[in-house]
Amino acid sequence: MLAVDLNCDMGESYGLYQMGNDEEMMKYITSANIACGYHGGDPHIMRKTVELAKKYEVAIGAHPGFPDLVGFGRRPLKATPEEIRDYVIYQTGALREFAAYHSVQLQHCKPHGALYMMAMEDEAIAKAILEGLYKINPELIVFALNNSAVLEVGRKMGMRVALETYADREHTASGSIVMTRAGSEIKDYDGMADRVVRMVKEGKVLTHLNEDASLTAETICIHGDTPGASVLAQKIREALTKNEIEVKPISEIL
Amino acid sequence: MLAVDLNCDMGESYGLYQMGNDEEMMKYITSANIACGYHGGDPHIMRKTVELAKKYEVAIGAHPGFPDLVGFGRRPLKATPEEIRDYVIYQTGALREFAAYHSVQLQHCKPHGALYMMAMEDEAIAKAILEGLYKINPELIVFALNNSAVLEVGRKMGMRVALETYADREHTASGSIVMTRAGSEIKDYDGMADRVVRMVKEGKVLTHLNEDASLTAETICIHGDTPGASVLAQKIREALTKNEIEVKPISEIL
Amino acid sequence: MLAVDLNCDMGESYGLYQMGNDEEMMKYITSANIACGYHGGDPHIMRKTVELAKKYEVAIGAHPGFPDLVGFGRRPLKATPEEIRDYVIYQTGALREFAAYHSVQLQHCKPHGALYMMAMEDEAIAKAILEGLYKINPELIVFALNNSAVLEVGRKMGMRVALETYADREHTASGSIVMTRAGSEIKDYDGMADRVVRMVKEGKVLTHLNEDASLTAETICIHGDTPGASVLAQKIREALTKNEIEVKPISEIL
Amino acid sequence: MLAVDLNCDMGESYGLYQMGNDEEMMKYITSANIACGYHGGDPHIMRKTVELAKKYEVAIGAHPGFPDLVGFGRRPLKATPEEIRDYVIYQTGALREFAAYHSVQLQHCKPHGALYMMAMEDEAIAKAILEGLYKINPELIVFALNNSAVLEVGRKMGMRVALETYADREHTASGSIVMTRAGSEIKDYDGMADRVVRMVKEGKVLTHLNEDASLTAETICIHGDTPGASVLAQKIREALTKNEIEVKPISEIL
Repeated sequence: MLAVDLNCDMGESYGLYQMGNDEEMMKYITSANIACGYHGGDPHIMRKTVELAKKYEVAIGAHPGFPDLVGFGRRPLKATPEEIRDYVIYQTGALREFAAYHSVQLQHCKPHGALYMMAMEDEAIAKAILEGLYKINPELIVFALNNSAVLEVGRKMGMRVALETYADREHTASGSIVMTRAGSEIKDYDGMADRVVRMVKEGKVLTHLNEDASLTAETICIHGDTPGASVLAQKIREALTKNEIEVKPISEIL
Repeated sequence: MLAVDLNCDMGESYGLYQMGNDEEMMKYITSANIACGYHGGDPHIMRKTVELAKKYEVAIGAHPGFPDLVGFGRRPLKATPEEIRDYVIYQTGALREFAAYHSVQLQHCKPHGALYMMAMEDEAIAKAILEGLYKINPELIVFALNNSAVLEVGRKMGMRVALETYADREHTASGSIVMTRAGSEIKDYDGMADRVVRMVKEGKVLTHLNEDASLTAETICIHGDTPGASVLAQKIREALTKNEIEVKPISEIL
Repeated sequence: MLAVDLNCDMGESYGLYQMGNDEEMMKYITSANIACGYHGGDPHIMRKTVELAKKYEVAIGAHPGFPDLVGFGRRPLKATPEEIRDYVIYQTGALREFAAYHSVQLQHCKPHGALYMMAMEDEAIAKAILEGLYKINPELIVFALNNSAVLEVGRKMGMRVALETYADREHTASGSIVMTRAGSEIKDYDGMADRVVRMVKEGKVLTHLNEDASLTAETICIHGDTPGASVLAQKIREALTKNEIEVKPISEIL
Repeated sequence: MLAVDLNCDMGESYGLYQMGNDEEMMKYITSANIACGYHGGDPHIMRKTVELAKKYEVAIGAHPGFPDLVGFGRRPLKATPEEIRDYVIYQTGALREFAAYHSVQLQHCKPHGALYMMAMEDEAIAKAILEGLYKINPELIVFALNNSAVLEVGRKMGMRVALETYADREHTASGSIVMTRAGSEIKDYDGMADRVVRMVKEGKVLTHLNEDASLTAETICIHGDTPGASVLAQKIREALTKNEIEVKPISEIL
């Protein structure tokens, strides 16, 4: 039976500032990428988000970003690979301790925003991150785009890499993503759900240039901060079930 | 044979900003309290400091503080016990991950600055911190002043508490410390070393009011950012050895 | 003819994080207290908020807070009066430059959250803030509670102090405020509007202990982050107009 | 008579962290670029540095950087031109208020680190910064490298641009600088002083490739955080005087 993981960025609120509707999304996803206090999130919110994930039996992962709260970690910062590795270790460790506090394990790590995109494209950065994660926990799963540096380096190192595609972003022919929202489709939840089903079943997607491309979808990202995100998540989950695709945490798939 | 631990705050530099002379101090101490990025320290410096401690076979502990870099964590901040617990978990976890990266274990936790003093005096804060630390690692040793809330709460919870005194600060009759430097004695390194020996051997100290008071000294703190700190550390170490007091990490003493 | 100023905290969003509905509130208020990047706000939002105030012909003032974004400036921080003065100068200057960019003048300064309450109660802090503001601009109006340290010190220094009361918080007999929301009345907008009218007209308010107390209301604060804030603002404005109380910026009243 | 300005980055300490020896440098320079709390500096240090400049009759300017304290503003951050403009206005305004507090005027603005280099190379960023500065104060002088975007845009806008060269960094043929220290010469203070004299007198410099290049030197930067910086500053000042080149603030030269 086919299976896929649904993931979502979580715990990106900060102090009194709210971001997204985490509890609503928890009902539909199977893996939560929890912000670690750099681009979003704070210690209090990290703990609350771990609690929430535990309540809904959602697997958790670290979602480390650049130390750029005002830019929400979306702006490339020319840090060295060594600095980046240390940022990832720091944030992953902080989250791991909240997981320990609630007796749960970290399943995965997915870098955030500009850090994610830079890691996908720059081998030295990919290497630095993966080497750091591997040393602290060789079982940790890392999320990566198709054809990315993280995939390539991770495979070489023998790390567990999960191939990720996006429900609400356009893909390029090489499996990368286009950082604007999926245009006219944005409210066509059924169309988006069908697209996800096709990615999982056929390993195919229509690119932003309207060509057919091949990709592997082991975990699907749904953004939680777009309006209607939980409706979309629900539609996707229903479409997957209807198509006999099991939805479960990535650690039970790889 | 009598034994005592010598501890020092470490890794309090930040980015390009230098604080203290960590490598010099590592030669004489047996436990390093490593800053965790809130009041001082950053991921890069945390990793380097763990490396340094490993090189000199010094045991390491978390040194969490308030999120107040510009005030170096020395200003009381009216955070709730719950917020404080989460700050401590966050920072301890981050440091633990750098320790894991270098295959070493966290031995202890010593809160920093205003957080330390508030925990010593406020039972709710002491409780919050200890409950957090106990859940993430019941073996962790916590540093506390004589007659403090942390001591009392820790003992009740069955945690390992190490009684701490100061080499370069005056004590009150109750074992608390006076946050100004030990006056005219500050350059009387031999006098300070003798005072430390007496604290360990006789459990006695002359207070800031020049009275004799009783206290227990299981770990002695030496500040690394005072000029001549490493000379003082060396003198203390020599005086202890001469008096047949063994100097070793607190985990080998308790 | 009687007159009163309506003020509201503004520009407290941060990066992608939204706080309050500034544009809606601008329609009803006459003075905007603009956050300056410490407890909330960032350079981009400060500029946008100045633009918005200009568009709605609302007078602007600095709203400096403690450097505690994660606590939204609501937690007392034991900074020295000198540190606090410098924080206020820094933030006021930053805002003044955005005002200059849009060719408007700063009308007033209202410290935020814990800084506001500490200034009202501590003469040394009140003095430090007022001395700083006076030196950079002796014409600046400062907001203060009835019977507060800021009022007393400001009057002595010959500064322009505006007496502030709250539409949506309970008052004590001495004119201070109770930091919980006005209980069961919170949705009784008409009741709150009547209460404001009475404060301005009769200089009287029913305290949280249900006693009648005297106070002077030159400027009324409405919180923008409570749900229904703009409805409340509208109701208050209407009630004031109906009672022939003119609503205009504080600089046209004092 | 020939004249030149000597400038130095100042006020880059932060809280308890010391950077450079500001008072020593003030004795030899004529313009101080004062950090504004983003890459370095804090409100307290800004005020102290303005006081110091006033005491030594050194002209002051804003030295705004990226919001990246841990990277000391030296890492390129892909902020938008609009964000950058707002960062510059914010920081310049904050400094201007401390200048107002001490009754002095801002003479100039020199962006820091990565922001400086990005502004020199990117026309959109140069434009954004200059447009912001011009609107808040059309008299402000901006520092720029020879042949840079800031020079070109500034000239077009009718702004006062001061051409800057470096005493302790190598130049390229186009007038840009090489961000490594001037190699073997670093302790050859006399050689460096001679090089500065030649830049001012002949408008020539030997590049890092050992070719002769033309450039205009209206203000010379000396880094304050290199060891021996004040000795170098003194040597340069003496060499200039000996060669009958007057040393004075840039506002008296342009």
